[in-house]
Amino acid sequence: MKILVSGFGPFGEEDTNPSEIVATRVAEKLREAGHEARHVVLPVAYRRAKAILEQVVGELRPDIAIALGLYGGITHVRVERVALNMMDFSIPDVDGEQPKDLPIDPEGPTAYLASIPTRRVVERLRGEGIPASLSYSAGTYLCNYVMYTLLRLSDRTGYPRRAGFIHIPYTIDIASRKKGLPASLPLDVLVKGVLIAVEETIKEIEKEK
Amino acid sequence: MKILVSGFGPFGEEDTNPSEIVATRVAEKLREAGHEARHVVLPVAYRRAKAILEQVVGELRPDIAIALGLYGGITHVRVERVALNMMDFSIPDVDGEQPKDLPIDPEGPTAYLASIPTRRVVERLRGEGIPASLSYSAGTYLCNYVMYTLLRLSDRTGYPRRAGFIHIPYTIDIASRKKGLPASLPLDVLVKGVLIAVEETIKEIEKEK
Amino acid sequence: MKILVSGFGPFGEEDTNPSEIVATRVAEKLREAGHEARHVVLPVAYRRAKAILEQVVGELRPDIAIALGLYGGITHVRVERVALNMMDFSIPDVDGEQPKDLPIDPEGPTAYLASIPTRRVVERLRGEGIPASLSYSAGTYLCNYVMYTLLRLSDRTGYPRRAGFIHIPYTIDIASRKKGLPASLPLDVLVKGVLIAVEETIKEIEKEK
Amino acid sequence: MKILVSGFGPFGEEDTNPSEIVATRVAEKLREAGHEARHVVLPVAYRRAKAILEQVVGELRPDIAIALGLYGGITHVRVERVALNMMDFSIPDVDGEQPKDLPIDPEGPTAYLASIPTRRVVERLRGEGIPASLSYSAGTYLCNYVMYTLLRLSDRTGYPRRAGFIHIPYTIDIASRKKGLPASLPLDVLVKGVLIAVEETIKEIEKEK
Repeated sequence: MKILVSGFGPFGEEDTNPSEIVATRVAEKLREAGHEARHVVLPVAYRRAKAILEQVVGELRPDIAIALGLYGGITHVRVERVALNMMDFSIPDVDGEQPKDLPIDPEGPTAYLASIPTRRVVERLRGEGIPASLSYSAGTYLCNYVMYTLLRLSDRTGYPRRAGFIHIPYTIDIASRKKGLPASLPLDVLVKGVLIAVEETIKEIEKEK
Repeated sequence: MKILVSGFGPFGEEDTNPSEIVATRVAEKLREAGHEARHVVLPVAYRRAKAILEQVVGELRPDIAIALGLYGGITHVRVERVALNMMDFSIPDVDGEQPKDLPIDPEGPTAYLASIPTRRVVERLRGEGIPASLSYSAGTYLCNYVMYTLLRLSDRTGYPRRAGFIHIPYTIDIASRKKGLPASLPLDVLVKGVLIAVEETIKEIEKEK
Repeated sequence: MKILVSGFGPFGEEDTNPSEIVATRVAEKLREAGHEARHVVLPVAYRRAKAILEQVVGELRPDIAIALGLYGGITHVRVERVALNMMDFSIPDVDGEQPKDLPIDPEGPTAYLASIPTRRVVERLRGEGIPASLSYSAGTYLCNYVMYTLLRLSDRTGYPRRAGFIHIPYTIDIASRKKGLPASLPLDVLVKGVLIAVEETIKEIEKEK
Repeated sequence: MKILVSGFGPFGEEDTNPSEIVATRVAEKLREAGHEARHVVLPVAYRRAKAILEQVVGELRPDIAIALGLYGGITHVRVERVALNMMDFSIPDVDGEQPKDLPIDPEGPTAYLASIPTRRVVERLRGEGIPASLSYSAGTYLCNYVMYTLLRLSDRTGYPRRAGFIHIPYTIDIASRKKGLPASLPLDVLVKGVLIAVEETIKEIEKEK
């Protein structure tokens, strides 16, 4: 399978973004398992993120694209079901852009549902002892933007065939250095969780054949 | 060194209590490291818990006693600094007892401070990437009761020489099965955290000599 | 103006639902102000709620419909922006129905955006000292169901001309009796908040003329 | 009765401290009711706060002293039961002082319990529809410092005869301007709540005669 995994680069006061580390490791593991996997680290800047996604999706024509983002403070893996056609940034992105109440694509539908098997992913994660939930809002910032952009590309060009977005909490060591000691999960659990999401999506694709 | 580590048995809807598992593993590791370590699993019943602590402390005459308890929902390891001479149970214990506004020991002081080096423990935990904080209230239920009882014994009999209480969050797999998906940490991180607390207390005792 | 305000009836352990009380009072105030206002109390049962909405919207042909729902634990008034074409009930409704992963209307779009001026409402609420936020998920239970149903009716029949959904927290006296003492706001602040939402929608409609 | 009510002055980013406003209004109401009531606004600076308390308690020789402090984020009125003989400031006070792990009074006991009827106050508050709880930790910053200082004065000099500390949440209008929209209660509910605490303490004192 051709699989794209994306994370985000550093943002705000953080010098490392766990979504980047998880994306890199997941892609490595997928390559070890024989897949044509690629990871990209997206800047927290919507115009550049879009350009990168369009290019890499055009080149790789992935069967599966799973984008990852940090959601500081959550206790578990949140599998997003809905991408909204809206940008409403509460803070500027790293390029200083801060769209308010603007559609991501004026031609696109109000929302897309994720095309990875979100419920099965969450059920399998919990079955393997990984705290996980379905979520119905990926926000209105970069995470939602990337999710919508992938699903819009899928709708317009056929690729990625299946796309989804997963919000991850802080890793334990990052949490230990942060004021307020937010909830966290170990890096290896996050990597395992995303691999499970990929596996369940592969099963779904194979069932269709 | 002679070291006592306690956890609590099952309580409420939970069939296993992570504090029991952590206490057992920590004592094993301490014995492997050459210490005379013992663990006890206390019932969530204050009269019986007291009788067990008095007996085992009388027999072992521990240099260090660290009691552990689950605090569902916390994101990190909470090292308790204060034991209060008060029982004010919001729910009955497993023996159906529910004291309200009663002193643990009418002859005892209003509060004791932990005699393990709580601040150093928290600093070391964070330094090793384990989320941890100092806490100034162990509640008014069994956890506070056990902490006060150990420090009262120490005050009256000289043993344990040093005593403290550590609140731990859910383990990841327990959290994954609970409604609301509370925050959690991996079992091995919790075991490592409690071992660090013991080590720092040993250093403190050795400094005094 | 013709204005419809809905709340929900009792649910679960609660014997009164603040959304019902607020809806009733708001409609009274609107009638006092000369509007043709009507309130309905919807059962927490999706089929019956739909039938009632279709009937009352057919009869009244409202310019504005604002539905209210309790969201226990929130600290402020949440003005919902998105209604999702999905039912995924985590608990059964009072008629015992519990649809999972089903569209509300298989012919409808994935999502509708509220047609009341949500941002202006939130800005005005804050300006008047009422804590309020924009929200991008009304959940997948009855609240989202009612919001989608109103916007679907609006899309298909032209009525209500403008529709929205507002989540309210507990009222203070209800919160004072609940375990865990959830956040709350006074009843009169909630009534004022919803009236402001109606006023801002009226201004919007008048601007169009 | 002679009654002292204290609040704190502005702190950090806040230009008004609701504890100051509540203290002022409560003292006014008590004077209207015929009591010799006085309010003081303490600086968030421990040395100066202590000097002010010693002076005013020496002058007034109050029967009752109730100190108030803001606890941002709580949902309800928290009646503190325990004052700890410890300063462990996580941030400097407004005079730049930041004691760490120091006793408030090296001669004083580890802790004092409040001498106002805390449980009865909480029961009465809830009975009147005001969300309230008993709390066993007033922290280790200025609030705890003031509470301990009042109880220490009471122990050493006999005045105030009864002392306590009450933590209050944000008022609604302050909350509406704050990021994250913390929980809040209306100013008049907070004033009423503190008056109830005073009334219950008066009843207690009158019972003793």
